[in-house]
Amino acid sequence: MKFSKFYAISTKENPKDATLPSHVFLVKGAFVEQIGSGLYNFLPLGKRVLDKIKNIIKEEMDKTGALEVNLSFNTPAELWKESGRFNVFGKELLRFKDRKENDFVLGPTHEEAMVALVRNKINSYKQLPLHLYQIGLKFRDEARPRFGLLRCREFLMKDGYSFHSNEADLDREFNLMHETYSKILTRLGLEFRAVEADSGAIGGSGSKEFMVLAKNGEDDILLCEHCDYAANIEAAKRTKKTCKDERPEADFATQFHTPNIKTIEELADFFKINPYYTIKAVAKKAIYESEEKIVVFFVRGDDELQEIKALNAAKALELADVNEKELENAGLVPGFIGFVGLNGVDFYIDHELENETNMIIGANKKDYHLIGINVVNLNKERFKDLAVVKEHDLCPKCQHKLKQSKGIEVGHIFKLGNKYSKAMNASYLDENGKAQFFTMGCYGMGVSRLVAVAIEASHDEKGCIWNKTLAPFILDIIVSNIKDTKAMEFAEQIYTHFKDKEILFDDRNERFGVKINDFELMGFPYALVIGKGLEKDEVEVIHRNTLEKQILKTQEVISYLEKIL
Amino acid sequence: MKFSKFYAISTKENPKDATLPSHVFLVKGAFVEQIGSGLYNFLPLGKRVLDKIKNIIKEEMDKTGALEVNLSFNTPAELWKESGRFNVFGKELLRFKDRKENDFVLGPTHEEAMVALVRNKINSYKQLPLHLYQIGLKFRDEARPRFGLLRCREFLMKDGYSFHSNEADLDREFNLMHETYSKILTRLGLEFRAVEADSGAIGGSGSKEFMVLAKNGEDDILLCEHCDYAANIEAAKRTKKTCKDERPEADFATQFHTPNIKTIEELADFFKINPYYTIKAVAKKAIYESEEKIVVFFVRGDDELQEIKALNAAKALELADVNEKELENAGLVPGFIGFVGLNGVDFYIDHELENETNMIIGANKKDYHLIGINVVNLNKERFKDLAVVKEHDLCPKCQHKLKQSKGIEVGHIFKLGNKYSKAMNASYLDENGKAQFFTMGCYGMGVSRLVAVAIEASHDEKGCIWNKTLAPFILDIIVSNIKDTKAMEFAEQIYTHFKDKEILFDDRNERFGVKINDFELMGFPYALVIGKGLEKDEVEVIHRNTLEKQILKTQEVISYLEKIL
Repeated sequence: MKFSKFYAISTKENPKDATLPSHVFLVKGAFVEQIGSGLYNFLPLGKRVLDKIKNIIKEEMDKTGALEVNLSFNTPAELWKESGRFNVFGKELLRFKDRKENDFVLGPTHEEAMVALVRNKINSYKQLPLHLYQIGLKFRDEARPRFGLLRCREFLMKDGYSFHSNEADLDREFNLMHETYSKILTRLGLEFRAVEADSGAIGGSGSKEFMVLAKNGEDDILLCEHCDYAANIEAAKRTKKTCKDERPEADFATQFHTPNIKTIEELADFFKINPYYTIKAVAKKAIYESEEKIVVFFVRGDDELQEIKALNAAKALELADVNEKELENAGLVPGFIGFVGLNGVDFYIDHELENETNMIIGANKKDYHLIGINVVNLNKERFKDLAVVKEHDLCPKCQHKLKQSKGIEVGHIFKLGNKYSKAMNASYLDENGKAQFFTMGCYGMGVSRLVAVAIEASHDEKGCIWNKTLAPFILDIIVSNIKDTKAMEFAEQIYTHFKDKEILFDDRNERFGVKINDFELMGFPYALVIGKGLEKDEVEVIHRNTLEKQILKTQEVISYLEKIL
Repeated sequence: MKFSKFYAISTKENPKDATLPSHVFLVKGAFVEQIGSGLYNFLPLGKRVLDKIKNIIKEEMDKTGALEVNLSFNTPAELWKESGRFNVFGKELLRFKDRKENDFVLGPTHEEAMVALVRNKINSYKQLPLHLYQIGLKFRDEARPRFGLLRCREFLMKDGYSFHSNEADLDREFNLMHETYSKILTRLGLEFRAVEADSGAIGGSGSKEFMVLAKNGEDDILLCEHCDYAANIEAAKRTKKTCKDERPEADFATQFHTPNIKTIEELADFFKINPYYTIKAVAKKAIYESEEKIVVFFVRGDDELQEIKALNAAKALELADVNEKELENAGLVPGFIGFVGLNGVDFYIDHELENETNMIIGANKKDYHLIGINVVNLNKERFKDLAVVKEHDLCPKCQHKLKQSKGIEVGHIFKLGNKYSKAMNASYLDENGKAQFFTMGCYGMGVSRLVAVAIEASHDEKGCIWNKTLAPFILDIIVSNIKDTKAMEFAEQIYTHFKDKEILFDDRNERFGVKINDFELMGFPYALVIGKGLEKDEVEVIHRNTLEKQILKTQEVISYLEKIL
């Protein structure tokens, strides 16, 4: 492709509100452009990268026997009402009415549509398993679209859905997808980890996220330094925390006057104990489909509440902060909340606190705490995993230290079980002729997001650094002065020789500096610079990743390029 | 692909409201399925055909130097307000508000978005021409979605937009696209004609439609039997009609009592003349953005009013029928409307009537007509092409007879001129440093529609007949009895030998009749039937297009298949 016939007009200005390198470089380098909040056009450079990613995903998915389909993006709302998600999904679900006043949604994901697709068609266990996938548009009306392609509203996703007659077969497919996602990301040249994850709004019995390691990642992940344990902080577990400091002794539930002692630090100081032996209350407003209520979460004094874990414990749609007034209205005493004698308010306790003895906790009475509390004789259902796992906590599998890192989610695979098939009454007949709900899995991968992720993982201060698998062009031929007829002839000759290869020939009537800047910003793996050196039969190759320059004799050029192209 | 691992479950019931073969066979043959009014899922078979069409279109488009992009499907409404089409486009434009109450549309076409894309980026004539295209989703909220994939609401389209610094260069690109569309349709194996077309809501100075000839086509087209003239009936022209019968003589505008003579037939009988010498009035309610009014169209007594021509003449958004009461309210006399002395009502006259003499026309007075009317001294603007061109009218180019035929529109290419660039203030600097609006072309092709069109053009009463270019699989290997180990072994051997080819191996535990029915319904070009003949070293090849059967010796099979695969 000759640059003069191509459309890639780089810009100097940073996109508004851009903080991440991928956002800055993909827009400035004319890969994509924003057309509205969270809406992007893919320009020719971006489209080439996107297609390469799509092709690799398709190749690997097809190898597994999954079958490609293409579901309608506009989905009748009735399917979402059947599954119960029409209201639950919140404002991210874009709802609209057509000209006949019927309700539709722009598909943010397609569990419902896929269940409707196989329902009443797959009638027997003999037709299972089945895995259907698509690479198509999704729309989620994000409250705060940002970070360029990383959090848009309209995006391209690979989503697959599998149907099974038993859990063991789902496990097999889940593992196959684990492998397949690993292969895809490896082929894309990305460093990633598959981590334990929260299943969020999709639901189901287990899930793993594929995280590309990148310092600007939105997600916190915990990795074991010794074994393969890795988890999103939202789902991370740890070996139960211990404390070497002495445990305070006291009679059971002794009330203690603690005037104005509201924080855990003040409390630990007051009693001269390690905060490990105190219990912290965090109150939240839990929002449900048809009600809102205050819920209190108790964690150890030196722990923090993990919001997603809390949300799951309370089975709420959302958790919001509460102010003192709201606490008081609910009959709670701000700063002194404890679970002993707490009535009329839902509460959950971190599971590591179960059976702890001699703990200190708020007395539900202003300026008083209770000491000598044993966390026993409470309903099992009260105990949930609620605490934030932190760096240096111990791995739940091997007890070595965990390390905290940043990642960007690029894939998420779920064991859905029969959540959707049951809600939508989708069943088959088993070996005994008995109707059973399908056991399902679902497997998502952010396709347009991967374009940005590749740059988050590989860039420098000048721009993108594409690897050869993803680069829109592998080589940029730069003639430093297009009026130099000999240089242009040589360039044409090389370009023609490799005309089926991915070469951009920068034949524009632009200054050399402009061309080099574009090369660095757009990040093609190599540039072949044809300049004054040609008089001495020399040209220069620049390696984009290191910016290292290498002089080649003209007669070596073809054999050199044969190797890299 | 083994059929037992594939997903293609044919059904016996006809889809509801299906009248066309493509609708019936694509649904029954499990190529697509409907999920809502005008919304279709592409199943694995349909997806394979769709991809083949997409790939051919992409290949041919890329050869022309057009550059592929991917524009956001959700488009901010402000762009449509800028171009003036937000209101004009009518209810087909799906409008919605996002969670922040901003207006968006689901792109039914992307002129606006493309102009916004190049605006302020292409600043100089030196950067022109430019042609950007995409293959992407469109949504049009059709009043009456029907005919399966032929008139859906969500569909896949190839739409390209070109930008030029002058008309001559637009003409060059328009011709290149004419050629490219012809190549694409030829490669797809479709019989088509490029016809003169009305430019409709897209606008512009000229357009051509690509029509695939098919007896169930929605469009009427007129083809010259002698030269290459071809036109959609909406835009068809003809050599001016003549009449050998005697022209009635009369003094100018003599009023004549014609009691109860309301139709042209009665009028011609009454005066014993050829209806050619009468003038017919057709009144319509013309709907504009902010008003509605009665408009009268006059055509020759033996002609019919062409509604699209009338719509264009009146520059209205829509034309509706009127009743007698509405005519009377507008001061018109039903059955006796003429343009002589007609005041306060807009009217247009068919251009073939200009300068006609001694015509008969309504007198705008109950039970009276005027005779001896010369159609002269009227404002030039009154005369428009308004009449329906019919079979046996004469070709406007070579005066031979026209033939009427049915076609399905699969592509439409437009010379837009500066309609959009001007409305949206998109300009570049010309050679003299003067700002000029872009001269534009746009080029659409219905990608998902082509799946159905291929079947409209090629089917029999049993099902689809795919050609080898479009077929989801070229060969269907049918083992008549899967318990016949030898037959299965032979089938496996063939299947393995050609494992990279497009073969479906029907290894299902189904009756032979079921397999043959699926073969005929799904329409793969060939079936290889392995049955009892194997004892005599014989197998059978069925050619789907003719249903002709051919016996092959087993040792010939591989070389035979090498030829057809």
